Amino acid sequence: MTDADAVKSGEYDVVVIGAGPVGENVADRARAAGLSTAVVESELIGGECSYWACMPSKALLRPVVARADARRVPGLSGAVRGPLDADAVLAYRDEQTSHWKDDGQVGWLEGIGADIYRGKGRLTGVRKVAVTGPDGSEQHLTARHAVAVCTGSRAVVPALPGIEDVRPWTSREATSAKEVPGRLVVVGGGVVGVEMATAWQGLGAEVTMLIRGKRLLPKMEPFAGELVAEALTEAGVTIRTGVSATAVSRAGKDGPVTVELDDGDRLETDEILFATGRAPRTDDLGLDTVGLKPGSWLTVDDSCRVEDSDWLYAVGDVNHRALLTHQGKYQARIAGAAIAARAQDASLETERWGTHAATADHAAVPQVVFTDPEAASVGLTLAEAESAGHRVRAVDHDLASVAGSGLYAQGYKGRARMVVDLDREVVLGVTFVGPGIGELLHSATIAVAGEVPIERLWHAVPAYPTISEVWLRLLETYRG
Amino acid sequence: MTDADAVKSGEYDVVVIGAGPVGENVADRARAAGLSTAVVESELIGGECSYWACMPSKALLRPVVARADARRVPGLSGAVRGPLDADAVLAYRDEQTSHWKDDGQVGWLEGIGADIYRGKGRLTGVRKVAVTGPDGSEQHLTARHAVAVCTGSRAVVPALPGIEDVRPWTSREATSAKEVPGRLVVVGGGVVGVEMATAWQGLGAEVTMLIRGKRLLPKMEPFAGELVAEALTEAGVTIRTGVSATAVSRAGKDGPVTVELDDGDRLETDEILFATGRAPRTDDLGLDTVGLKPGSWLTVDDSCRVEDSDWLYAVGDVNHRALLTHQGKYQARIAGAAIAARAQDASLETERWGTHAATADHAAVPQVVFTDPEAASVGLTLAEAESAGHRVRAVDHDLASVAGSGLYAQGYKGRARMVVDLDREVVLGVTFVGPGIGELLHSATIAVAGEVPIERLWHAVPAYPTISEVWLRLLETYRG
Repeated sequence: MTDADAVKSGEYDVVVIGAGPVGENVADRARAAGLSTAVVESELIGGECSYWACMPSKALLRPVVARADARRVPGLSGAVRGPLDADAVLAYRDEQTSHWKDDGQVGWLEGIGADIYRGKGRLTGVRKVAVTGPDGSEQHLTARHAVAVCTGSRAVVPALPGIEDVRPWTSREATSAKEVPGRLVVVGGGVVGVEMATAWQGLGAEVTMLIRGKRLLPKMEPFAGELVAEALTEAGVTIRTGVSATAVSRAGKDGPVTVELDDGDRLETDEILFATGRAPRTDDLGLDTVGLKPGSWLTVDDSCRVEDSDWLYAVGDVNHRALLTHQGKYQARIAGAAIAARAQDASLETERWGTHAATADHAAVPQVVFTDPEAASVGLTLAEAESAGHRVRAVDHDLASVAGSGLYAQGYKGRARMVVDLDREVVLGVTFVGPGIGELLHSATIAVAGEVPIERLWHAVPAYPTISEVWLRLLETYRG
Repeated sequence: MTDADAVKSGEYDVVVIGAGPVGENVADRARAAGLSTAVVESELIGGECSYWACMPSKALLRPVVARADARRVPGLSGAVRGPLDADAVLAYRDEQTSHWKDDGQVGWLEGIGADIYRGKGRLTGVRKVAVTGPDGSEQHLTARHAVAVCTGSRAVVPALPGIEDVRPWTSREATSAKEVPGRLVVVGGGVVGVEMATAWQGLGAEVTMLIRGKRLLPKMEPFAGELVAEALTEAGVTIRTGVSATAVSRAGKDGPVTVELDDGDRLETDEILFATGRAPRTDDLGLDTVGLKPGSWLTVDDSCRVEDSDWLYAVGDVNHRALLTHQGKYQARIAGAAIAARAQDASLETERWGTHAATADHAAVPQVVFTDPEAASVGLTLAEAESAGHRVRAVDHDLASVAGSGLYAQGYKGRARMVVDLDREVVLGVTFVGPGIGELLHSATIAVAGEVPIERLWHAVPAYPTISEVWLRLLETYRG
């Protein structure tokens, strides 16, 4: 049977389920290695990131953050006191999501020579995938070498009384809403919560955040959440901590929503967003046909191959290693290379930082939160490093005291922390919080992933007067 | 004789001539090592950078660049169509230079325990420095261990007919002018030229640049000057290349200036800035008393010690290794450590990247040009790497094609280049040109100074969607 005949009969080297950025990148690597590849997608090619996450959220946030920046610049601040043109921002967001049409991404995927199967993919056994098309028809695919599950995650909405009637927002509605609500309640203080509170407050909504715990951005260094909370409050957001919603109801079809709280209080809003966590999209995937539990996160090794399997890969959110687009794409590059190497019976480099080991997932996951101020981190926080048993020292510096910060913005507020491994004299983690630090993070990512010794970082001179000079201050403080 | 008695008689461990950032940092390191230290300064403590270079120039540029950025942001662009409030910008500049008063810096220098001598310092022999005070009095200092010359550089103005009558601007006047000139001619297309053209055009002047050669920013990759020239032209600056001024004259005391050109043309302007090069401030320094040539750049080894001397150091611009504040401060840290180690008869680490070797001067000098677009580079350009005999490959990428760029600015224009050493598989140089890339440079500086292998950079994941993602594209292109 020739390759073309095989493909006609549904037999591929690799079958990818899910065509978000992660699935696309697995397919890209497989195709680059000459492997025939099918990609199965039930929604839009391009996935959550392109249509309901990174792209639309940043399109909504950039104008808000740019205005906040401009308001701190002498000679310019007066011009930007007024509101944003929300219609223009929403139109820009629509453009950045290609108006929720995937023609461009389809073209790209076809261009690399992958076959697209539109429909719901599910496993039906070892190396076997069935695709149920929109018309109910079914196609059967076989993977000679690997099936890669790249179905991602979905927002979890708590099962509160009345929840269905209020049609709550999740990250999808929050990034694709066509109008600015008058009032918005945001439940949850993680990344989605703070970003969407920033965006919609900036676009004119009156935003209230309900936080179960005490602080925002609980996975970052404590000062990140503190500085973001301070700025959100200044921008007009009401933040209520230590509180949970217990019931919700909407008056009539389109009337206001009432939210009841566990402290006995209640409040009224026009829309309510639940940014309260993610669940794996593995519940309707036929995992039971291959001995796995439907609805579970899929545990993988560093090549992203599912434990105890020699053919099943789980890449991106679905493996629960790091729920971030860029990290999923990184895993896709690693997994794609591993699939190709194994298909060719080549030897793998699975040692730490090897070509086929997603080592950064453990040591150097970067994240930029696009709020005002921006919050960015990579690697371990002080608490994480300590609980992992490292002998560490955290060095802090006030970002406002760097010349470049004062030149970037009047009244600059920010802070940086570097966590150093005292035994190896390398940097385990860095956090920057402040306006204009988003692009600075990659310096820390290279330092952490590169395990560049402190002694050598001393020779990496920051250009004056940039905010990057904080590196010098952190190193000076560390070296005493 | 006790230390206090010695100091009273003018005997110090270290004498520093010049109290700019470089001299301050040499003094800081010497004091930290417990060495008695005198600092001699004839102008303001804090030097060129604080009063007539980095600080005021960036204070003038930030509003111009921030406005350019804001003009590319949907929903915000409409608000910032108008002119900047130039008075507010100039007032901000005055504040950033502490109104040309050095009380704060004096306090800092005294705080570290250095003695300040106000006056003109000059060598009078081996380890001997005379200080002529503002009142003509003379004091004599002796350095037990080291004299550090940190006198910097000055602008060179060509000896054109009529030059004195026109009172030409140099970088000092261009950064401290109290009013926006109606018309400004900028002679020279290096960093000072493009930055000051950007600033004054942005503040309302009608700027014409006269460039002897063909391109702006000739020391950077060619596309840097091309992109900056394109944007300056769009902003209204007239750029004339391949032309030199041959004579200048001013009508009356405060009338307009006429500039005659070597192509026979002439033009009229209100002020003329010469940004045509720098000369060492060593002409009146007594170099002849120690066998060196007055007015010359001082050649030093990697510890910044003058060749064939065991006591004389030249740090910062004056050694002509890299005329940049941050690089001078880096040298000061290295030189200060070397002075201290030698004073204590400790062994030095002068090998490549050692504690006492300013290795970055050869391999990893970073620079950010604060124009619109920003231009930033570190390490070697392709041409420099080739002429140094490296076997290299340059990888280019269109910055506009990165998702983070499109989200940063509509109509984003920019480009990146990475120069890779094919034998060692490390990065020798990186150039970024585009809006919002200033803080991104330090990632490249760490990669170059850290000599992080390409294989490892593959694991340094850029956060999505930032402009930093260009790193991934460059590495993908390199790896094919």
